[in-house]
Amino acid sequence: MAHYRHRAFNTRDTYPEQSLDNDLAYAVVSRGRTIHMRGHCPQDLETSVTIDSADPVAQTHKVMQNMRAIIEECGGRMEHLVKLVVYITDARYREPVYRTMGEYIKGVHPVCTGLVVSGLATPEWLVEIDGTAVIPDDDG
Amino acid sequence: MAHYRHRAFNTRDTYPEQSLDNDLAYAVVSRGRTIHMRGHCPQDLETSVTIDSADPVAQTHKVMQNMRAIIEECGGRMEHLVKLVVYITDARYREPVYRTMGEYIKGVHPVCTGLVVSGLATPEWLVEIDGTAVIPDDDG
Amino acid sequence: MAHYRHRAFNTRDTYPEQSLDNDLAYAVVSRGRTIHMRGHCPQDLETSVTIDSADPVAQTHKVMQNMRAIIEECGGRMEHLVKLVVYITDARYREPVYRTMGEYIKGVHPVCTGLVVSGLATPEWLVEIDGTAVIPDDDG
Repeated sequence: MAHYRHRAFNTRDTYPEQSLDNDLAYAVVSRGRTIHMRGHCPQDLETSVTIDSADPVAQTHKVMQNMRAIIEECGGRMEHLVKLVVYITDARYREPVYRTMGEYIKGVHPVCTGLVVSGLATPEWLVEIDGTAVIPDDDG
Repeated sequence: MAHYRHRAFNTRDTYPEQSLDNDLAYAVVSRGRTIHMRGHCPQDLETSVTIDSADPVAQTHKVMQNMRAIIEECGGRMEHLVKLVVYITDARYREPVYRTMGEYIKGVHPVCTGLVVSGLATPEWLVEIDGTAVIPDDDG
Repeated sequence: MAHYRHRAFNTRDTYPEQSLDNDLAYAVVSRGRTIHMRGHCPQDLETSVTIDSADPVAQTHKVMQNMRAIIEECGGRMEHLVKLVVYITDARYREPVYRTMGEYIKGVHPVCTGLVVSGLATPEWLVEIDGTAVIPDDDG
């Protein structure tokens, strides 16, 4: 079974202001079970436009809504989430980002690694969250 | 088979000085085989108290002891370790951290990516190490 | 089946200028299918010598050539790539790095997370790319 490449795109469309040409995807489902996902960003999934807010709470809501949408589009559910890596660009965003993220993973208990990094793909993004989900064997 | 969530916790308990509410876990074992782990930290596993040392050697010992404990609690062994990502907050910690980590992975040969980042979850932590282990198919 | 540890090495050989002793590998193939890889670096695979160029394009070519070589040595192909994490040390390297990387993943569409970090293993490296490949079930 070939891997399922979900929402395949090229970076010339998602980063029109940058001069790029990368064939990427929002998710790759390998062996029908593991949902590998790109770092989720505060962008509209359809238009790739960054949301009009520099508030880490608003950005995190969009990030987690995108993650949930992608997992569900790939046939999974948030409760299948196994791992998160949270990247923020300033340590002071930690509390608003984590508090907001917490609303989306109530009762799920993924593992999580949290890092402060020097930058993300664009200066406007304050947070990016990488996620991996695995659909359990007995799950339809 | 549902994923096994090992040492599920809420961040209000592990980071009492921060105002957080995230349902997380120390490890998630998916499909009975892959042990996804949170970034291991220089914290006591039972109390979540950071060790009383700003020495990168001491912190790395605690980090690797925690990793080993979690893998064993999940039914694996250090030799099942497949991947490490080492995060340090200053490039000068690289040698003490790697030298110490090396003692715990003698003969194991995981893959490893090493990064200097701007910060971890608390200013006291100098090192965090993310690990993934996979229990081989023929292993009891 | 035990994990296959590909190109096992010790850091005393790959970083002779640093005082390290870590048993690592270029790739670990777990359960015969998932190729976990170390962050790929602008180093010669045989000699571990960093290429003689501070050009992010040249460094990225070497990084991606190493990734492709390792995947193929492990029995896979670039089209089995599922995930990339791109680490650069300056946001201004993003376009040259991504443009170059794009040449190697034409038509593949892995997921990708891109980060600016404070540093990599040596000051000379401007880019490191972490990759994971999964050999599909029906693939010889």
